[in-house]
Amino acid sequence: MTTTDASPRELIQRTLRGDRAALARAISWVENEQPLAIEVLDACFAASGRARRIGITGPPGAGKSTLVTRLARAWRACGESVAIVAVDPTSPFSGGALLGDRVRMGELAGDPGVFIRSMATRGSLGGLAVHTAQVCDVLDAAGFSRILIETVGVGQSELEVAQTADTTAVVLVPESGDGVQAMKAGLMEIGDLFIINKADREGAERGAYAVRSALELRTARTEWVPPVVLTVASQGTGVGEVLDQIEAHLAHLETTGGLQQRRRQRAGQRLHDVLRGRMWLEFRARVPEPEWRQFVERLAARELTPDAAADALMARARDGSGVTPSP
Amino acid sequence: MTTTDASPRELIQRTLRGDRAALARAISWVENEQPLAIEVLDACFAASGRARRIGITGPPGAGKSTLVTRLARAWRACGESVAIVAVDPTSPFSGGALLGDRVRMGELAGDPGVFIRSMATRGSLGGLAVHTAQVCDVLDAAGFSRILIETVGVGQSELEVAQTADTTAVVLVPESGDGVQAMKAGLMEIGDLFIINKADREGAERGAYAVRSALELRTARTEWVPPVVLTVASQGTGVGEVLDQIEAHLAHLETTGGLQQRRRQRAGQRLHDVLRGRMWLEFRARVPEPEWRQFVERLAARELTPDAAADALMARARDGSGVTPSP
Repeated sequence: MTTTDASPRELIQRTLRGDRAALARAISWVENEQPLAIEVLDACFAASGRARRIGITGPPGAGKSTLVTRLARAWRACGESVAIVAVDPTSPFSGGALLGDRVRMGELAGDPGVFIRSMATRGSLGGLAVHTAQVCDVLDAAGFSRILIETVGVGQSELEVAQTADTTAVVLVPESGDGVQAMKAGLMEIGDLFIINKADREGAERGAYAVRSALELRTARTEWVPPVVLTVASQGTGVGEVLDQIEAHLAHLETTGGLQQRRRQRAGQRLHDVLRGRMWLEFRARVPEPEWRQFVERLAARELTPDAAADALMARARDGSGVTPSP
Repeated sequence: MTTTDASPRELIQRTLRGDRAALARAISWVENEQPLAIEVLDACFAASGRARRIGITGPPGAGKSTLVTRLARAWRACGESVAIVAVDPTSPFSGGALLGDRVRMGELAGDPGVFIRSMATRGSLGGLAVHTAQVCDVLDAAGFSRILIETVGVGQSELEVAQTADTTAVVLVPESGDGVQAMKAGLMEIGDLFIINKADREGAERGAYAVRSALELRTARTEWVPPVVLTVASQGTGVGEVLDQIEAHLAHLETTGGLQQRRRQRAGQRLHDVLRGRMWLEFRARVPEPEWRQFVERLAARELTPDAAADALMARARDGSGVTPSP
């Protein structure tokens, strides 16, 4: 039996055994929101919870892909198995992501303890953070012990994705460490660890100092003081310390009960995202397309306000005269 | 009567006359999602549609604030009135935005034809793109002929905000023009105009060339070929050409019917955002907080899958036994 015509049960069994073809297939089902994916997800969710998830975020060009590749190799040397999820919410064509992956594949190819996946789809069911969490559940269930979630941009969606992780590392370059710009990007609040990459360039120490100063302004204070590590990922410099600090943060979370707290927050956010996605799908199934278009047209012509249009459409969905009222 | 205890009707009348105190108050109502804001918004929505909205986006540090200030001054010299909305979705504390504004205020202060507003709130009712569109409606109704919407980051939310505009300008620096990175950030797809700022730095021409090459890969082809303009905003170099190109794009939209099409897309997106926000609020009003927390707890403990939790909560909201079933 090939993976193409696999039953969900078959696919689940093979995925949980770590079969790579089945794993790739299961992830595709999830990404494409196929109806059968629900069964796979439920099984994987129940079997997950062992992997440690590490989010890597920061501005484009900071060298995140190179760093992630180095971290994967370092973890492999320690006997961990590593999955890499590269998330690019904004790219309708994935030229950039593909290029980065190809470079990476060269360094990690053929290692059965490494799995790499790019995600660019947004989907309808609750957005990218939900999809990312689902894909991580599948990888977790398949037995990977470290999952690296790499985001491409530094916007709100990217921060949300990074925050589905247990540990979030923010990668900056010496120039972006000037405090004000980093604060603007909201990065200072979410990092458990800050990395000044390309630290062989001018101003690295000054950048690190600026980040440390900015960290003192953080509103959410915890016992954990985020370390600032200088790296030159392309040469491997500092990668060992990043690894140590990530492991130290994970250990800190485990001993202080922070992991439980973080997972509770994550669960609340995920439930919120899933519910919003499902309510929307249910709503749209109740409003016929021509009617929807008519309201959009009247809104565009300013014959209706957004609130009036929303009122009318919600009443329309409630009265149940639409296509498929839910049970 | 002060603006503090103004009635919605009073506030609307004064806002539509362009009274600055009333305008500031009306925007605050909108931002804080006050119940009375709906009346104000409905009136402003009906009175809007004349202003041209220009989104300015790009990576942190590209010099967007400086450019926006220069554009505002140039438009003022042409007799246009200008509102600036600086949107920072990711900043929980607005240190950066405030700093930028203070610098800007110095150059534009005291001019009654300029209005500047920072927004950092996200709110519950449909997200930042909705709030931005609402604030722009108020400014539009108050008579500003040009509204500049400046976003701080380059993520999904920022792109959504930028796309509420009629014209979207993407600001890059010579180094960010290397094509792959810009593509990764999804910026190539949304720009009607590309600006290579800080063009006195090395590699500006090469950056412009790379952007032009990347533009040839765009999936959405239209008759409008996005121009690439070199600027040194801090010295005013190239600002006139940016202004001309923005006006040329607006004229193009008007003559080709593209403006109508764009506003229809925008209306559809806005209706989607508003509806999702309202459905969520309605749902949460039907599920008591302790019950919600209990589900989150069980999800975090993996006793329930996200889908099972969503099923149960949606059934709970449907059976109407919650706090305030909607009429």
